[in-house]
Amino acid sequence: MKGLDDARRLDAADPLRRFAADFALPEGVIYLDGNSLGAPPRRALDRLAQTANEEWRNGLIRSWNAAGWIDLPKRAGAKIARLIGADEDSVVVCDSVSVNLFKLAAALIARNPGAALCVDAAEFPTDQHVLEGVARMTGAPLLRLDDDDIPDHAVLVRSLAHYKSAEILDMAAMESVARKKRCDIIWDLSHAAGLVAVDMKGAGARFAVGCGYKFLNGGPGAPAFISVAREEAEQIIQPISGWMGHAAPFDFSSDYAPADGVQRFNAGTPPILSLSALDAALDVFDGLDLNLLETKARALGEFFLDCVDDLPLTPLPTPTRRGGHVCLRSDDGYAIMQALIARGVIGDFRAPDLMRFGFAPLYISFENVRRAAETLREVLSTQEWRRAEFGKRGKVT
Amino acid sequence: MKGLDDARRLDAADPLRRFAADFALPEGVIYLDGNSLGAPPRRALDRLAQTANEEWRNGLIRSWNAAGWIDLPKRAGAKIARLIGADEDSVVVCDSVSVNLFKLAAALIARNPGAALCVDAAEFPTDQHVLEGVARMTGAPLLRLDDDDIPDHAVLVRSLAHYKSAEILDMAAMESVARKKRCDIIWDLSHAAGLVAVDMKGAGARFAVGCGYKFLNGGPGAPAFISVAREEAEQIIQPISGWMGHAAPFDFSSDYAPADGVQRFNAGTPPILSLSALDAALDVFDGLDLNLLETKARALGEFFLDCVDDLPLTPLPTPTRRGGHVCLRSDDGYAIMQALIARGVIGDFRAPDLMRFGFAPLYISFENVRRAAETLREVLSTQEWRRAEFGKRGKVT
Repeated sequence: MKGLDDARRLDAADPLRRFAADFALPEGVIYLDGNSLGAPPRRALDRLAQTANEEWRNGLIRSWNAAGWIDLPKRAGAKIARLIGADEDSVVVCDSVSVNLFKLAAALIARNPGAALCVDAAEFPTDQHVLEGVARMTGAPLLRLDDDDIPDHAVLVRSLAHYKSAEILDMAAMESVARKKRCDIIWDLSHAAGLVAVDMKGAGARFAVGCGYKFLNGGPGAPAFISVAREEAEQIIQPISGWMGHAAPFDFSSDYAPADGVQRFNAGTPPILSLSALDAALDVFDGLDLNLLETKARALGEFFLDCVDDLPLTPLPTPTRRGGHVCLRSDDGYAIMQALIARGVIGDFRAPDLMRFGFAPLYISFENVRRAAETLREVLSTQEWRRAEFGKRGKVT
Repeated sequence: MKGLDDARRLDAADPLRRFAADFALPEGVIYLDGNSLGAPPRRALDRLAQTANEEWRNGLIRSWNAAGWIDLPKRAGAKIARLIGADEDSVVVCDSVSVNLFKLAAALIARNPGAALCVDAAEFPTDQHVLEGVARMTGAPLLRLDDDDIPDHAVLVRSLAHYKSAEILDMAAMESVARKKRCDIIWDLSHAAGLVAVDMKGAGARFAVGCGYKFLNGGPGAPAFISVAREEAEQIIQPISGWMGHAAPFDFSSDYAPADGVQRFNAGTPPILSLSALDAALDVFDGLDLNLLETKARALGEFFLDCVDDLPLTPLPTPTRRGGHVCLRSDDGYAIMQALIARGVIGDFRAPDLMRFGFAPLYISFENVRRAAETLREVLSTQEWRRAEFGKRGKVT
């Protein structure tokens, strides 16, 4: 098993070590759930206070222009574009991942009558649920796949990084096959953005959605993003044609005319307080080499697995390329995770038996990982997880 | 013209005068645009700071349960239910008005094949735009009406309080006709909630959407609400079937099963920072007699019109029952409004020629109104609105 000295040696050599100071984390907590809800960047908390106490309170309605609220979906989108290798003007921040996936899948089916909606049967459940809704409304068939084949004449939704296995798919290889098969892939980048050095343009990927509150650290329920390559965006109209996606929203015309490019994927008025926090959170990534993030996350995960490899827990098989978390399987996983949380080591649990530990490379150190592993060892050796208080299934797990 | 003494006498007798202290407004500003973006309740600013700096920062992922984030859409919905005369469990806060209108109109068309989508040709533009999207996706015809007749076999969208005329419709009378004509009315309560003593149940109204950031004071782009009577909600499935509207969101089942009642209208993860501010803002209304709001708003508007009735501006015709704003027409309206704003009297402008003055009865006094009218008189008599700086059309007007 790796020791504390190993951890400290790795931390000393970590090119990202200066970033932890940018985050506000409570004392006594080792936070291994940034893949579910990112920790707050200090600048996001400051910006939120400014948006509320200066822009809303003092600027009032004037802040739509004076504080640039009206352009926030576009500005925050441009920052995310850099993180996913998309053109600056091909990403907009709006709504939730569910709503954005609905808009995009429905728009692609409308352009491509007869295409099937396809999704991996092990895909993140809400993506599957949303596609059920699109299928119900459009009449397109929904096929649940159980292999990695790219279907013909389809709109396929795939997570680039899987929420359980953390496997990172080969975007370029899949896109290359998809083009030959008339298959539009919508990439769900929720577990990838801000962690993986995604290169949408390089891979020929044209469509993506993703979440603002995981590795992008935008705050609980932060607005999501949607990316549509410029030449594609001009050819499709999304169904939720609200005023923010109008070509001239302040003309108050009765007829809808879609805005240029991806801006037409805006719908209603965005939640400015939440959006403002996300916009500030994204500045943490300014100038950062994204390859460092994925490399460190992988190293943290491997270090963790090394530290716990003698414990009676089964890691999920290691994929060739792995994202920011690892999963350990145990029938008692729920109670063990609760006991860990009670000791200040916060991961999460995914039914039926997965303990998930996320390693946000901007604020997690190798020493954190070593201490978390030690705590897990103690929780198991003392069997404290058997206490009644840890046995009840909560609502959020 | 009414004088300052008249204003002070009315203020002294105002049963709502104690509420102004609950709001944080900047010095030197008379804010007559609460119908567009409500002023911040102090408790909303406090709650936002708590949500960010305690719940997000210290509670992290645990706050979904520990701070009750997961129930916020329902809890805030129950508070709004009281303001619109709906059953407590028939309102949920989620998404934007545009997205909610899409979900509800699409769900009603799906239940009622062959029905037409109908909207008044003078309805708030974004509502018309959204219905265009629903029509495109469902194939239902979209009819733009130019009279107040209730159409047969239709899904009709109507604002209870109009964004220009401020006319408040007779909900009960319209519902009574609608029932006979197989017409489902979706009420847009954006300019009514928190101002008009809406009685959905009493009027037999079953469907509504509305906005959280106008008279509900939830903050810029605050999440919207949707209301569906219980017996109706169980019969319809909305198309954006995301995890928050699932019957068992934490089972991570691949198949969608709609949650009970209106909760199925939830879609993705809500923007908690924005939602939390709205939830706190709603507590301002706790125990308040809503009839006082509408009565005072009407009185403020009449007082304003009395104060300016000798000025060369044309008020829109006064409807029988009027909401929280009045409009004055002038070809120079845009520049005049800019000049007013420069003097700290903030209203807004609606193209092509309407200056709109909103009277949020919780924090606007008769003295405010008198001073605003005086300022308008000065801006006109000095002709300062002719200065070049006021002539350029901004993006948000």
